[in-house]
Amino acid sequence: MLNAIDKHMLRTVAGMHDIPQGAYNIRKNGAGISRNTTANIEIRTKEDKPGIDIIVKPGTKGESVHIPVILTAEGLEDLVYNTFDIGEGADVLVVAGCGIHNPGDMNARHDGIHNFIVRKGARVRYVEKHYGEGTGQGQKILNPKTIVELEEDAFAEMELVQISGVDNTKRDTEARLHKNAHLLLTERMLTDGNQFAESKVQVELLGQDSSVRIISRSVGRDNSRQIFYPRVVGLNRCRGHVQCDSIIMHEAQISSIPAIAAHHADAQLIHEAAIGKIAGEQLIKLMSMGLSESEAEETILKGFLK
Amino acid sequence: MLNAIDKHMLRTVAGMHDIPQGAYNIRKNGAGISRNTTANIEIRTKEDKPGIDIIVKPGTKGESVHIPVILTAEGLEDLVYNTFDIGEGADVLVVAGCGIHNPGDMNARHDGIHNFIVRKGARVRYVEKHYGEGTGQGQKILNPKTIVELEEDAFAEMELVQISGVDNTKRDTEARLHKNAHLLLTERMLTDGNQFAESKVQVELLGQDSSVRIISRSVGRDNSRQIFYPRVVGLNRCRGHVQCDSIIMHEAQISSIPAIAAHHADAQLIHEAAIGKIAGEQLIKLMSMGLSESEAEETILKGFLK
Repeated sequence: MLNAIDKHMLRTVAGMHDIPQGAYNIRKNGAGISRNTTANIEIRTKEDKPGIDIIVKPGTKGESVHIPVILTAEGLEDLVYNTFDIGEGADVLVVAGCGIHNPGDMNARHDGIHNFIVRKGARVRYVEKHYGEGTGQGQKILNPKTIVELEEDAFAEMELVQISGVDNTKRDTEARLHKNAHLLLTERMLTDGNQFAESKVQVELLGQDSSVRIISRSVGRDNSRQIFYPRVVGLNRCRGHVQCDSIIMHEAQISSIPAIAAHHADAQLIHEAAIGKIAGEQLIKLMSMGLSESEAEETILKGFLK
Repeated sequence: MLNAIDKHMLRTVAGMHDIPQGAYNIRKNGAGISRNTTANIEIRTKEDKPGIDIIVKPGTKGESVHIPVILTAEGLEDLVYNTFDIGEGADVLVVAGCGIHNPGDMNARHDGIHNFIVRKGARVRYVEKHYGEGTGQGQKILNPKTIVELEEDAFAEMELVQISGVDNTKRDTEARLHKNAHLLLTERMLTDGNQFAESKVQVELLGQDSSVRIISRSVGRDNSRQIFYPRVVGLNRCRGHVQCDSIIMHEAQISSIPAIAAHHADAQLIHEAAIGKIAGEQLIKLMSMGLSESEAEETILKGFLK
C-alpha cells in the first residue's frame, strides 16, 4: 500500500523505517490509510469533522502514537482536526510529522489543528516535523495550529521542526498552563529560496508555579523571510523564559517580535533574542581543518539546528 | 520672576539651582519667560508654531543648552515643537526636563515634540527628566515625541527619565542612523498609584557600521501599568542591542514587546528583557544590616534606577 515515495516521506517526517510499534494512524492525501490502536491508546475517527481523537488511558506509561500525514499529489487542500486526550498520570510520546511531496505546478496544502488536553500529572513528548519537496512549481504549504491545555502538575515537551522545502507556513501555538504545569517548547526552522514563515506562540501562565521555556532556533537563507511572535503572559507566581536565536544569510529577512507580560508581582519573565550571521571564527576554524567554506557553513548550520 | 514652586520644579527636572551657564530657554505655563543665547548657540522662536529652534554652530565644544518646561497651573494643555540643529563636529549638552505642579482637579498636560538633526561628526548628550506633583485630583500628563536624525559619524547619548508623579505618558522616540552613527538611549521610569506609561522606541540602522544600544529600566508599583515597545531595524552592516529590565511590585502590570528585524545579513541584533520582583537575597542582605523592609526596598529601587 505504501510506495517508495510514501516510505521516504514517512521516514523523513516521522522517523518511521517500518510500521511503528504501538498506536498509529497514517493519513495520505486526505484520508486515513492505516491505523493501529492498543489496549491503552484508542484512536477514533471524528464524526463531525475530518480528523481523529487520540485517547490515552490514565496511567499509560512508555507508549507512543505516530500520526504522520503525507501529501503526494498536487492541488490538494487537506484540513484535519486531531484531539489528544492524555489521561491522568500517563507518560507518552506523540510523533506527528507532515510531509508534502508535490510533483506538479499546483499548490499542495495541509492545515493541521491539534488540540491537546494533558490531564493531571500526565507527561507528553510531542515531536512534529514538517518537510516539503517536489520538482514542479507548486507550493508546499503547511499551517499547523496547536492548542495545549496543561492541567495541574502536567508536563509537555514539544519539538516543532520545519526541516526544509516548505514554501509558506503560518504556525500558531497556544498553551494554557495550570498549577505547577511545565512546558518546554523548542522550535527549529530553516527557510531558503523565496520561502516565508511566520510563527506565533502564545503561552498563558495561569497557575501558581507554572513555567514555560521556549527555545527557538532558525536559519534564513536566500530571499526567505521569517517572523517570530513568541508571547508569554504571567498571571500568577510563575516563570517564563524565551530564547530566540537566528542565523541570517544572503538576502534573507528575519524579525523577532516577542512579548512578555507580567500581570502578577511574582511572575518572573525573561526574553532573549539574537539575530546575526555565522560567527567568522567558527568558519575559519572549520576551514583550517580542511573543509571548504560551504562545507563549513553546512556543518555549523546543522549543529545550530540540531 | 521665579517663585519658590518654579525654582523647586526647575531644580527637580533640570538640575538648575540657579540660572544656568550657557544658553537656555525657560518655558512656564505655555510661554517663554527667560532666554539666553551665546555666540555659538542661537535660540529662535518658531514663527509657524509654538516652540523654538536651537542652532548650534559647527565645531561648538563643551557648551550646554537648558530648555526646561514647567507647568504650575491646572487646566493647561501645552504643546511645543523644538528643533535642534547640532552643527558639524559640535559637542554639546542639552537638558530638557518637564515638570508639572498641578494644584487643582483639572488636568495639566504637556506635549513636547523634539526634532534633532545631529550633523556630520557631531556629538550631543541629551537629558530629559519628567516629573509631576500636585495635591488635587488633576492628572499630570506628559507626552514627549523625540525624532533624531544622526548623520555620518554622529553620536547621541539620550537619557530619558520619568522620575515620578506622571499619571499618564505616551513616549515616542524615533531615530535614523546613517553611516557610522551611534546612539546610546537609556530610559528609566517609575510608575505608582494608577499611573499608565507607554513607551515606543523605533530605531532604523540605515548606514554601514551604525549602532544603537537601548537600555530601559523601570519599576512598576501599586496598580500602575507599563508597556514598552522598543524596535530596532537593521538595514545595513550594523549592530543593535536592546536591554530591558523591570521590577514589578504590588498589583502592577508590565509588558515588554520588543522587535528586532534584520533586513541585512550583516545586521547583528540582540534583545534581552526581564521582568521580575526584587531579588529576595538583596532584601535580606540589606535588612540584616539594620534596614527595615521598606527602607531596603527603597535602597534597591534607587540603585536600580540610578
